[in-house]
Amino acid sequence: MKTEIRSFFDSVRPAIDRSLEELLPPDTTPPSELHRAMRYSVLAPGKRLRPALCVASYSIYHEDYRPILPVASSLELAHTYSLIHDDLPAMDNDDFRRGMPSCHRQFGEAIAILAGDALLTLALETIASSVHFEAGRLNHAMARLARALGTRDGMIAGQVRDLAAEGQQLDVLELEAIHRSKTGALLSTSVWIGAWLGGADASELEALLRFGQKIGLAFQIVDDVLDETASRETLGKTAGKDRERRKATYPALLGIEKSRGSVRKLTEQARDAILPLGGRAELLIGISEFLETRCN
Amino acid sequence: MKTEIRSFFDSVRPAIDRSLEELLPPDTTPPSELHRAMRYSVLAPGKRLRPALCVASYSIYHEDYRPILPVASSLELAHTYSLIHDDLPAMDNDDFRRGMPSCHRQFGEAIAILAGDALLTLALETIASSVHFEAGRLNHAMARLARALGTRDGMIAGQVRDLAAEGQQLDVLELEAIHRSKTGALLSTSVWIGAWLGGADASELEALLRFGQKIGLAFQIVDDVLDETASRETLGKTAGKDRERRKATYPALLGIEKSRGSVRKLTEQARDAILPLGGRAELLIGISEFLETRCN
Repeated sequence: MKTEIRSFFDSVRPAIDRSLEELLPPDTTPPSELHRAMRYSVLAPGKRLRPALCVASYSIYHEDYRPILPVASSLELAHTYSLIHDDLPAMDNDDFRRGMPSCHRQFGEAIAILAGDALLTLALETIASSVHFEAGRLNHAMARLARALGTRDGMIAGQVRDLAAEGQQLDVLELEAIHRSKTGALLSTSVWIGAWLGGADASELEALLRFGQKIGLAFQIVDDVLDETASRETLGKTAGKDRERRKATYPALLGIEKSRGSVRKLTEQARDAILPLGGRAELLIGISEFLETRCN
Repeated sequence: MKTEIRSFFDSVRPAIDRSLEELLPPDTTPPSELHRAMRYSVLAPGKRLRPALCVASYSIYHEDYRPILPVASSLELAHTYSLIHDDLPAMDNDDFRRGMPSCHRQFGEAIAILAGDALLTLALETIASSVHFEAGRLNHAMARLARALGTRDGMIAGQVRDLAAEGQQLDVLELEAIHRSKTGALLSTSVWIGAWLGGADASELEALLRFGQKIGLAFQIVDDVLDETASRETLGKTAGKDRERRKATYPALLGIEKSRGSVRKLTEQARDAILPLGGRAELLIGISEFLETRCN
C-alpha cells in the first residue's frame, strides 16, 4: 500500500469509528440488549470501505472531510444491517462474521433481526438529520441510497437472486448481474454520495459512478478469491463456504488466475474512468489499488 | 360510524390503496417472488389507519389531499414491514395476518425477512423522492418517522420490550410504556407528519401529537380487547393468542369493562387535545370515535 493511501486509512478509519461510536445508541440505555447487538456488529473491526470511499470522494472537493463523516458512517450502518440479515439461519446461515460469532449466534435470532432493522433505520435517520448539507441535496442522497439498498437493481434484489441461484449453474454474466446489485450498488452509491454532497458536477458524478461500479465488481471478485485462498483467521468469516454450498463464484467459473486478471482489468478501467479528475482523485485511485493488492 | 367519517373512509381508503398499488413494484418485474410477497402483505385488506390519520391531519390545512398520498402510504409500508417481521418464527411466530397466512407462511422466512426490509426501504425512498413538499420539511418528516420506528422510544424499542416481557408480570404503567413505543409512536407520528407537511404551527403540532398519543394507546387497548372477544374470522389473525402466550394485556390486568372505560377516557382526552382546532379537526375526531366503537 502506498504511503499516501496508508496515511489516509490511518486517519480516516479512526475518524469513522469515532463517528460510528457516537451515532450508535449507548448500550447503557434501554433496550440495552438490542443496543449491545447493534454495537457488537458495527464496531467489530472492519475495513470501513464504504465510508472510506464516500470520504475520499467528498475529499476531491473539500479539504476538511469532517462534515461528511456522519453520512459516510451511515453507509457502514446500512452495510452492517445487510450482513446481519444475510447471516441469519433462513438466509446464508453463517456462524462467523468479522472474526466473531455472527449477530444471531451471539444474541439470538429475534434480536439479530431487530438489530438489522434498527441499523437501517438509524442510517436513514442520520442522513435525514444531517445539518451540514442543503436539504434538497440530502433528500436526493437519501433517495439514491434507498434505491441502492432496494429491490430494483439494489442490494435486496441481489440477495434474492443470490439465494435463488444457490446450486444453479450460472455463467459469468449472470454472476456479474447478481454482484452488481448485491454489493456493487451500495459501493458505487457510496462514491456517488460523497461527490454529490461535495458538490461535483454532472459529468464528474457520472465518471465517479463508473469508477464505483468497476471497483464494486473488482471487490466482489477479490472476496470470492479470498474465500478460496484464505483461512478463516485471515478472513474473519467461514472460509471455503461458497464452494461447500456450490455457490457460483468467479474462481469456480474462471479459475483463480483469470479471476485475478479480471480484478486487474477492472481496477484499470476504474482508474481510467476518473482520469479526467486528475490528481484530485488520487485517494480513490489509492483505494482501488489497495483493493487490487488484497487478492495477490 | 357517522356519515361524514364514513364518507371520508369511503373516499380515502381506495385512494390510499391506489397509491400503494402504484408505489409497490409490479410482481412482473424481478425479483418477482419478492415483489409478490411485498404486494401480498401490503395489499391485503387493512384499515389503513396510519395513512388515514396522516391524510385527515393534512386535510385540516388543505382541501385537496392528493399531494400527501404517497407520504401517507409510506406509513402503511412501514407498518406492514413491522407486521411481517413481528410475525416471524423467531419473534411472535404468528401464522395468520389480515385473514391470510402470514408472509413467511406463504413465501418462506428468507423472502419474508427481505420483504420487510424492502418495505421499510421503499417507505423512506418514497418520502425522500416526494416532489410536493419543501426539502427541509421532508427531511424533518423523515427524521421523525425514522425516530418513531427506531430504538429510542420507537417501534423497535417496543418490540424488544414486548418480547422480553412475555410470561412476566407487568403493571399497567409498564404495559403502557411498551405500547407507547410499539404502536403509539408510529400512530402519533402519522398524525404529526400530515400536519407538519400541511403547514401546522408549533402549538397545533403539539396538540395533534397529544391527540395521536391518546388514540394510539386507545387503539392498542381496543386491539387487546378484540383479541379476547373476537373470533379469528373477524380479527384476520389468530385470536386469543395473547392469553395463550401469557402476554400482559389490558383486559388481563383490568378486565374487559375497565379496559373499555379506558378507551372511552382516552378518546375523550384525544378530542379535548384538539378542541382548539375547532371544526377543522372533525375528521380526526371522527376517526377517534370510529376506533372507540370498534371495541363495543
